[in-house]
Amino acid sequence: MHPLLEMKGFILDVDGVIGRGDKPIPQAVKAVNRLIEMGKKVVFVSNNSTRSRKIYMQRFKDFGVNAKEDQMFLTTYVTATYIKQNYGKAKIFTTGEPGLVEELKLAGHQIVDYRDADILVVGSNRQISFEILTKALRMCLDQDKTYIATNPDKIFPSEDGPVPGTGMIIGALYWMTDRMPDCICGKPEKVIMEQALDYLQLKADEVVVVGDQIDVDVVAGKRVGAKTLLVLSGVTTEENLDRMIEKFDEKPDFILRDLSELFDTL
Amino acid sequence: MHPLLEMKGFILDVDGVIGRGDKPIPQAVKAVNRLIEMGKKVVFVSNNSTRSRKIYMQRFKDFGVNAKEDQMFLTTYVTATYIKQNYGKAKIFTTGEPGLVEELKLAGHQIVDYRDADILVVGSNRQISFEILTKALRMCLDQDKTYIATNPDKIFPSEDGPVPGTGMIIGALYWMTDRMPDCICGKPEKVIMEQALDYLQLKADEVVVVGDQIDVDVVAGKRVGAKTLLVLSGVTTEENLDRMIEKFDEKPDFILRDLSELFDTL
Repeated sequence: MHPLLEMKGFILDVDGVIGRGDKPIPQAVKAVNRLIEMGKKVVFVSNNSTRSRKIYMQRFKDFGVNAKEDQMFLTTYVTATYIKQNYGKAKIFTTGEPGLVEELKLAGHQIVDYRDADILVVGSNRQISFEILTKALRMCLDQDKTYIATNPDKIFPSEDGPVPGTGMIIGALYWMTDRMPDCICGKPEKVIMEQALDYLQLKADEVVVVGDQIDVDVVAGKRVGAKTLLVLSGVTTEENLDRMIEKFDEKPDFILRDLSELFDTL
Repeated sequence: MHPLLEMKGFILDVDGVIGRGDKPIPQAVKAVNRLIEMGKKVVFVSNNSTRSRKIYMQRFKDFGVNAKEDQMFLTTYVTATYIKQNYGKAKIFTTGEPGLVEELKLAGHQIVDYRDADILVVGSNRQISFEILTKALRMCLDQDKTYIATNPDKIFPSEDGPVPGTGMIIGALYWMTDRMPDCICGKPEKVIMEQALDYLQLKADEVVVVGDQIDVDVVAGKRVGAKTLLVLSGVTTEENLDRMIEKFDEKPDFILRDLSELFDTL
């Protein structure tokens, strides 16, 4: 039996671990369901900043994963929760998409014009415009406004090539104003992991963080003191593994080709 | 007589020197026309990256300045000329506005899809979109593509507050790809000043560069070895002058309240 099957909790990245974009990785989906059947506590953490949990549930159903909405820690939800816990119900201007707006509203926040907002929430937006960027710029220039970002990802892979992530907006604002977010909620930062651990009601040394990116998932896991498992079914592959370890100067505790190898280690 | 009236050539910034946005500074316009009548060689240099010279001429007519199109060195035109001189007629993808596209085409360049382009030209665009930014990102990631920016300005003042300049896109691309432009054409870089000097057929020590911004105009003038005159009719004012000099650690050769003081120095 793989030693990680002794762990009580599993914090699983989604893209590159149980699916790739819209498509499931069938043997990994089976492995997740087997973990759940075994009574392991499982949550899913994703830096996705454009989808609400409700939207994401549909993908999980399509994949065939037996998970519930409250096991999903997307940065849309994590950011909304972080703000409520630290600032109460707030007046927010966001650069983000309807999925982020939905989670912010569900947490009780008000979405208002930038002039009336106390908090700027930066999240990726495929409808980004000069007007939105101008409003975000003006809020950044005002040191009285709090500035929170969903996730730091600079570039995302997509089917036809790389596309900008939330990091593009963070970078643009930093270049113009010398200001970085007061808090970034997504991996490799700790906020998302702390919310996941809190939900699991487990200590960090009782869980393993599973992901396909060393600089995102493995670093996030190590920062909270969890065990880490790198799977080679996404961004990191058998081919680039050595290069990635050298580049990010960080080693996962365990490496498997994909999640199903938890159950059929040689 | 003011000693600068001995100079043969005048390289004049536009915004904050002879106008503010759409509105002329009447006594400065009179002074410019008087310089022209005296037989001084005069050109106008502007980091504006969204307007063609043809569009800009209308503003000059409205201001009452007796200038011709070939005396205008906007970064739209300067960039198109720079590329022609260094790369010949090129296949270009640009993030910019119709005014920039117009100048690029007038110089004989072809505007093509990013996949077919050899040169990325970054200029400001009030219609910027995720799609445009994605294409610029992909060109930046390809080291075989040349990357030219019209101007470095991060933020521009506008009537209702600060708005992003071309620098926003440069910053976003740098954050995502660690890549800066192979050349930036606008002030304080030298390309625009060299084209102006070349047109004037004068040596740098025969001209004075006039502007309202120490870090943009004065630095640009000093870099090519010209005399510099700071006017306090734009971004730099009598109130913030000392702070600006300290901030940018650079002193202009001369300071006047506005351009008309060339003719009525106390």
